[in-house]
Amino acid sequence: MSFIACLDLEGVLVPEIWIEFSKKTGIKELQATTRDISDYSELMKMRLDVCAKNQLRINDIKEVISQMSPLPGAKEFLYGLKQRFQVVILSDTFYQFAEPLMKQLDYPTLFCHNLVIDDAGRISDFKLRMNDQKRAAVKAFKALNFKVLSAGDSYNDISMLLESDKGVLFCPPQNVIDEYPQLTVSSNYAELNSAFDEFKG
Amino acid sequence: MSFIACLDLEGVLVPEIWIEFSKKTGIKELQATTRDISDYSELMKMRLDVCAKNQLRINDIKEVISQMSPLPGAKEFLYGLKQRFQVVILSDTFYQFAEPLMKQLDYPTLFCHNLVIDDAGRISDFKLRMNDQKRAAVKAFKALNFKVLSAGDSYNDISMLLESDKGVLFCPPQNVIDEYPQLTVSSNYAELNSAFDEFKG
Repeated sequence: MSFIACLDLEGVLVPEIWIEFSKKTGIKELQATTRDISDYSELMKMRLDVCAKNQLRINDIKEVISQMSPLPGAKEFLYGLKQRFQVVILSDTFYQFAEPLMKQLDYPTLFCHNLVIDDAGRISDFKLRMNDQKRAAVKAFKALNFKVLSAGDSYNDISMLLESDKGVLFCPPQNVIDEYPQLTVSSNYAELNSAFDEFKG
Repeated sequence: MSFIACLDLEGVLVPEIWIEFSKKTGIKELQATTRDISDYSELMKMRLDVCAKNQLRINDIKEVISQMSPLPGAKEFLYGLKQRFQVVILSDTFYQFAEPLMKQLDYPTLFCHNLVIDDAGRISDFKLRMNDQKRAAVKAFKALNFKVLSAGDSYNDISMLLESDKGVLFCPPQNVIDEYPQLTVSSNYAELNSAFDEFKG
């Protein structure tokens, strides 16, 4: 058997980028999440408008993000996981935002989306690589004869978790646990390692 | 645009494992390659028979392989590549053989095959994950809306290179160059970086 472990990024390996970004910049409007504006595209448009209004160009944003760190223990967890599984990060963030954090994690393979940046470094738009990309990636890996394990913390991970041979909720909010009682829940990296290793057998 | 760079392993990042293994163990029969026995499954059966005859168990083999090193400059090349592209290694080797070399390369994501190892550590068989897996992976990545670049050095890479948006022959033998004049040829990592970056634009 060959195994791939798919991990969500924010909430699993790194903090929620926009929440941290809001703290670092002091821009309160950027604290909004999909809980406040449920449509992801609408939320992203609002965020980019706020960045434009505050004259934040991509390098300013990367500078702020480079001051963030992966979650405590994330780097060691990821290194250990790579020794036992092939690992692919499936995230709905953007390559340009993730880069400073990927660097700190030694650049694991990441499937996410792209920002459109103009010659002056302004973020003019964003492009989702495809809809429901996490689930599509899991389906593709299964078709390549991998057994797929995955871990994520929130609603945009559910289709990935349900499509996987083993999907694990990692530190999820209580409402997500309640809605998906069929999914295993792990509260820390040791539990997540155990859940994955148990499936591998 | 989102990009994945797919790399063959042996001949691109590490030496030919069985050739090196033959040198380290002094077992001459293990120098045979697909040029001598064109059927890969037949060749692998012969190799595993020779390992059994010489009472080489998986840990002995891993011990020998752990004395090998990646090709000069490979680690730096790979680290630089990961900063600019998502990288997946597509190889027809086996996870158990590759592991000591993957460790030296900081465990990049690797798609390959598995050995069947019994409780005493003897290699009893091998299982190809699927046929023509390199090409299938490239097709899957394209269906996930990635632009796919790839590099390899020999016949088992050709279907991957031709399926990719940009396929590059890396230090190939002359007969392969002659047979596939449509493919770009790179003779070192600097040229391969240039070929990939030029496509990315």
